[in-house]
Amino acid sequence: MSPIPSMSPLTPGAEADLAALRAGVDRALEVFLAERAAELDDVDAELGIQGDLVAEFVAGGKRLRPAFAYWGWRGAGGDPDDPRMMVAAASLELLQAAAIVHDDLMDASDTRRGRPSIHRQFAALHRDRGWEGAGERFGLGGALLLGDLCLCWSDEMLRKCGLPPERLLPALGYFDTMRTEVMAGQYLDLVTQSAADTTMARAMRVVRYKSAKYTIERPLHLGGALAGAGEDLLAVYSAYGLPLGEAFQLRDDVLGVFGDPAVTGKPAGDDLREGKRTALVAKALETATPAQVERFQRWFGDPELDSRGVAELREIIVSTGALAAVERLITDLTAQASQALDKAPLTADDARTALAGLARAATQRTG
Amino acid sequence: MSPIPSMSPLTPGAEADLAALRAGVDRALEVFLAERAAELDDVDAELGIQGDLVAEFVAGGKRLRPAFAYWGWRGAGGDPDDPRMMVAAASLELLQAAAIVHDDLMDASDTRRGRPSIHRQFAALHRDRGWEGAGERFGLGGALLLGDLCLCWSDEMLRKCGLPPERLLPALGYFDTMRTEVMAGQYLDLVTQSAADTTMARAMRVVRYKSAKYTIERPLHLGGALAGAGEDLLAVYSAYGLPLGEAFQLRDDVLGVFGDPAVTGKPAGDDLREGKRTALVAKALETATPAQVERFQRWFGDPELDSRGVAELREIIVSTGALAAVERLITDLTAQASQALDKAPLTADDARTALAGLARAATQRTG
Repeated sequence: MSPIPSMSPLTPGAEADLAALRAGVDRALEVFLAERAAELDDVDAELGIQGDLVAEFVAGGKRLRPAFAYWGWRGAGGDPDDPRMMVAAASLELLQAAAIVHDDLMDASDTRRGRPSIHRQFAALHRDRGWEGAGERFGLGGALLLGDLCLCWSDEMLRKCGLPPERLLPALGYFDTMRTEVMAGQYLDLVTQSAADTTMARAMRVVRYKSAKYTIERPLHLGGALAGAGEDLLAVYSAYGLPLGEAFQLRDDVLGVFGDPAVTGKPAGDDLREGKRTALVAKALETATPAQVERFQRWFGDPELDSRGVAELREIIVSTGALAAVERLITDLTAQASQALDKAPLTADDARTALAGLARAATQRTG
Repeated sequence: MSPIPSMSPLTPGAEADLAALRAGVDRALEVFLAERAAELDDVDAELGIQGDLVAEFVAGGKRLRPAFAYWGWRGAGGDPDDPRMMVAAASLELLQAAAIVHDDLMDASDTRRGRPSIHRQFAALHRDRGWEGAGERFGLGGALLLGDLCLCWSDEMLRKCGLPPERLLPALGYFDTMRTEVMAGQYLDLVTQSAADTTMARAMRVVRYKSAKYTIERPLHLGGALAGAGEDLLAVYSAYGLPLGEAFQLRDDVLGVFGDPAVTGKPAGDDLREGKRTALVAKALETATPAQVERFQRWFGDPELDSRGVAELREIIVSTGALAAVERLITDLTAQASQALDKAPLTADDARTALAGLARAATQRTG
């Protein structure tokens, strides 16, 4: 196992660029969504709610995918302050909004970021207006259409970023692949959650498509392609982005079971209560004794699971060696990502320290 | 009220072109979807079902939007046999597939074109595999993701049609508008179905956005723009397409209440049983006496509605004068469309007869 090289903090330049990116993304979303809201308003005043909810929803995003797209652009020599890149990066927040709104619908989640989920908000609107029929059905329709709008708007925004066709068209190719991959990953996750025979191999495939490619590798490719990056650099982005993205998701899985509620903002052992078949769980079940498997299945996915049950499941995950194995995997994958970065022919040195900093933040976080 | 001019049958040339279009659209969809299926297969064999269901679903489409896009292209001087236009036209079938799959989910419809709807097919897969959890929830997730895939694939297919950027980019602008409009129209329809106070004005707005623009005007614009049509011709397409599209939907509304089950393939008075607040119903309720309104509301939307109830509701729609008013509107709108066509600066004469033929087919059909 290799030590983790070059995990230096962000340079002041990279910090400032990241702050400028966030401001640029905010501004680009405001401008684009104001135009769309005006279009909707031309149709009927009743449509105001759709525009308002999208604007409110994207305001709360972490800008993770825009950040990777931005550093992919910078690493290929893109201008730090090009407003066209801010627009392109911001478009990924609309894709992510669509994914989350539809995901909450599939999972029947009541909340998101401490607020009611979008389908709950539409159901509440239905109730407040005293409309006829079932509010839940109205909520489903409203959220489904809002997610569809975000999906369409994300590619409209990206395409209208203002960069020339010879840069835009190859980048849109990565965008296409990214969308197909994330939906493939989501469907595979749905199957994985339904089929009881989850293997570590399939769980890792879900991690790769639903998270690693979608959150890190493809945004880097998109930004790189927009700056005219060559094949070599794009290959380095894969060599850095894929293992880092996998480590990022595995960290998420560990936090879902062992995370401190004060930091994660979620109840302790939440993923165990939900019965989420993550790579961590797949690993535990692959190495558990038949008696341990039986004990695990008895509690896993029980919505009423109490702290004693959480402790029992955690104990099995620890004693089977699954936790240690996954932590080792996180360390190895992060090291792979760092080594790829060290060898990368990046144009901007700020990009190197920024990507190293993002790697650390993604895998060493506690919430 | 004007007579309807130039409702001549299709010329043999136009008939042959339409047949070639259908074959071209079929072929383009096959090629594009085979590529996507290969991408999905690279991820996991479990994803085969997504590709298979999309291919099967689009095979049953009526090719209505591709036909209008094609004649929009021809009217602007586009080459009759350009395979790139076949690809562009075919992309609209994927957009329509997304709209239908999500619509069936919103309406909880069990069937589509005589087969189980997509969410029912995913629920059946869940049952056949003996998977864990609720099959209905799996069906929702599978269909939601399949619709999302179709939505993304439609713009990918259009963008990759092979026409040069200077033609493609303006056309994509119409495509963007079309998508936002149809989703706006669908949301407005959702509100209209929930709010009891449907006015004729709002019902006609739903007709305009959900049907007229989406099915006829915007496909014409898209095809026209791909052939480099000028503002004048695009304005003619609106003058022809909007009234025709409204007439088309109003004919649908009349058939939903008065259609012959042997021709429509749906039970008599199906829209009355579903309680669909169409323009026809809005018109009836606007002109009905309070006693008629009360009688109407007693039966309207009752899933158990029998033939006596259907007859009673039909009688109210007839005696209020709503049916005659809507038939008059269909005639007037169709005449408007025909007059616009007569004055149109179309490059190909086949396009004129084809568009006139499509107008007749859309508004005089019985099923």
